[in-house]
Amino acid sequence: MKILSSVNKMKEVANEIRKEGKTISFVPTMGALHAAHLSLVEEATKRADVCVVSIFVNPTQFGPDEDYMKYARDLDGDIKKLDKFGVHLVFVPETEEIYPKDFQTFVEVEKLENHLCGRHRKGHFRGVATIVLKLFNIVKPHIAIFGEKDYQQLKVIQRMVKDLNIDIDIVSCPIVRDESGLALSSRNSYLSSDEKESARSIIRTLHKMKEEFDTGSNLSTMIKGTGGKILKQSNIFDIDYLEICDPETLESKDLAERGDLLAIAVRLGSTRLIDNIRL
Amino acid sequence: MKILSSVNKMKEVANEIRKEGKTISFVPTMGALHAAHLSLVEEATKRADVCVVSIFVNPTQFGPDEDYMKYARDLDGDIKKLDKFGVHLVFVPETEEIYPKDFQTFVEVEKLENHLCGRHRKGHFRGVATIVLKLFNIVKPHIAIFGEKDYQQLKVIQRMVKDLNIDIDIVSCPIVRDESGLALSSRNSYLSSDEKESARSIIRTLHKMKEEFDTGSNLSTMIKGTGGKILKQSNIFDIDYLEICDPETLESKDLAERGDLLAIAVRLGSTRLIDNIRL
Repeated sequence: MKILSSVNKMKEVANEIRKEGKTISFVPTMGALHAAHLSLVEEATKRADVCVVSIFVNPTQFGPDEDYMKYARDLDGDIKKLDKFGVHLVFVPETEEIYPKDFQTFVEVEKLENHLCGRHRKGHFRGVATIVLKLFNIVKPHIAIFGEKDYQQLKVIQRMVKDLNIDIDIVSCPIVRDESGLALSSRNSYLSSDEKESARSIIRTLHKMKEEFDTGSNLSTMIKGTGGKILKQSNIFDIDYLEICDPETLESKDLAERGDLLAIAVRLGSTRLIDNIRL
Repeated sequence: MKILSSVNKMKEVANEIRKEGKTISFVPTMGALHAAHLSLVEEATKRADVCVVSIFVNPTQFGPDEDYMKYARDLDGDIKKLDKFGVHLVFVPETEEIYPKDFQTFVEVEKLENHLCGRHRKGHFRGVATIVLKLFNIVKPHIAIFGEKDYQQLKVIQRMVKDLNIDIDIVSCPIVRDESGLALSSRNSYLSSDEKESARSIIRTLHKMKEEFDTGSNLSTMIKGTGGKILKQSNIFDIDYLEICDPETLESKDLAERGDLLAIAVRLGSTRLIDNIRL
């Protein structure tokens, strides 16, 4: 497994791979890899001749009051994990090379970013779209893999790829959960044991809401009311959103329909967690 | 010479050309081609194996009160001209395919667009950067050619290419002028004969200002005062800007230096004209 940090070297290697007629799959990550990342990596290794994983904690997708500085980092551990999964190339660029002095070009996906997390994390998806486009231009993959936990991110990337006529297949992988159902996240490591106990009620809440829908209720306010009650009982009081929305446009819906997205973001102490299921 | 309008077909042909190991040069235009466009095309044909010219009047770079609807269009004439210059491929996409329903992704070059034309044409460079990035992803050129009359556009594109790690050489060509010195522009065709007479004073004004700088004056306000006077004498009263600025950042300068950009935008009736020279 090769580890590269130079943008030009990464481009050169990618060009060589393509010249040989080989395909490239790509998993962009912010490191602190856990089983959910590795499920994407496993999929990626199956999908192309050469699998590239990037590790880069992207400053432009964090707000000024967010956890950029304290975001979990474990490069040595990450590299060991990736090596076991048969990854060919790990790209670990320097922040200064990715965002040089006078950097000023950003990509905005304007409608999608006005919903869900985009309303609570101003500029987040602008940072995500920009870094992903840059990484696409550097790594030159044929296919890129994203997780469905960051559902809005997935939709933003799919839209960007379509709108900007980018020739990359975007593939998504299902959410990976621990035995209690809690969606895996690098941020779970911030949780106290009490907070973790509360966090486990998130997926239980979503399932209860889906149950209510399955038994004939389709008024979003009613279903969301049920969800809100369970969260309170589980000591979750700080809810960024609990939404039933169109799975493509992410617009809120008053009347829930089969296939709609049930999405949630809550704060436990200073930790923000998200999750989603489909109705 | 082939004429293509399908985005997918254009991508396919570009991929084939690249697979054969051939290089592609590209000149994006809005049509209504004149000698200045053709100078870019001539340069492009020399610079690569295959020369592609696009013709697309891009709605997203026009403001709501601007001349999108009446912008000069002459596809048949354009195609005849390009054929004579040895162009291999003309790409003439449909607006509906370039901007489908729900299109929502835009590229912003944030600092550069706050100066000169960007201050007077809100959203113009966002539209320019977005369409150029889309065309780059469709035509897949190794090299793209832009004119120096649209100096700010050139800088925006260069910055976007650098910031987004795009592997395309951006080449610029000097302004082409008629025998009176008036910079060629598709919008010159809108001018009445009186307005054309006034328009001819634009370059004379810039030269007088440069003369003043050459003879030892370096206070921008003084040099710009001289320019303003000549414009008034030539019946040009509506000046969007007359600036002396840094040729890279486009920031206004109080003290002019050798190599600075002297840039102007004026309105004659409803026609907006721009020009520039270097000190």
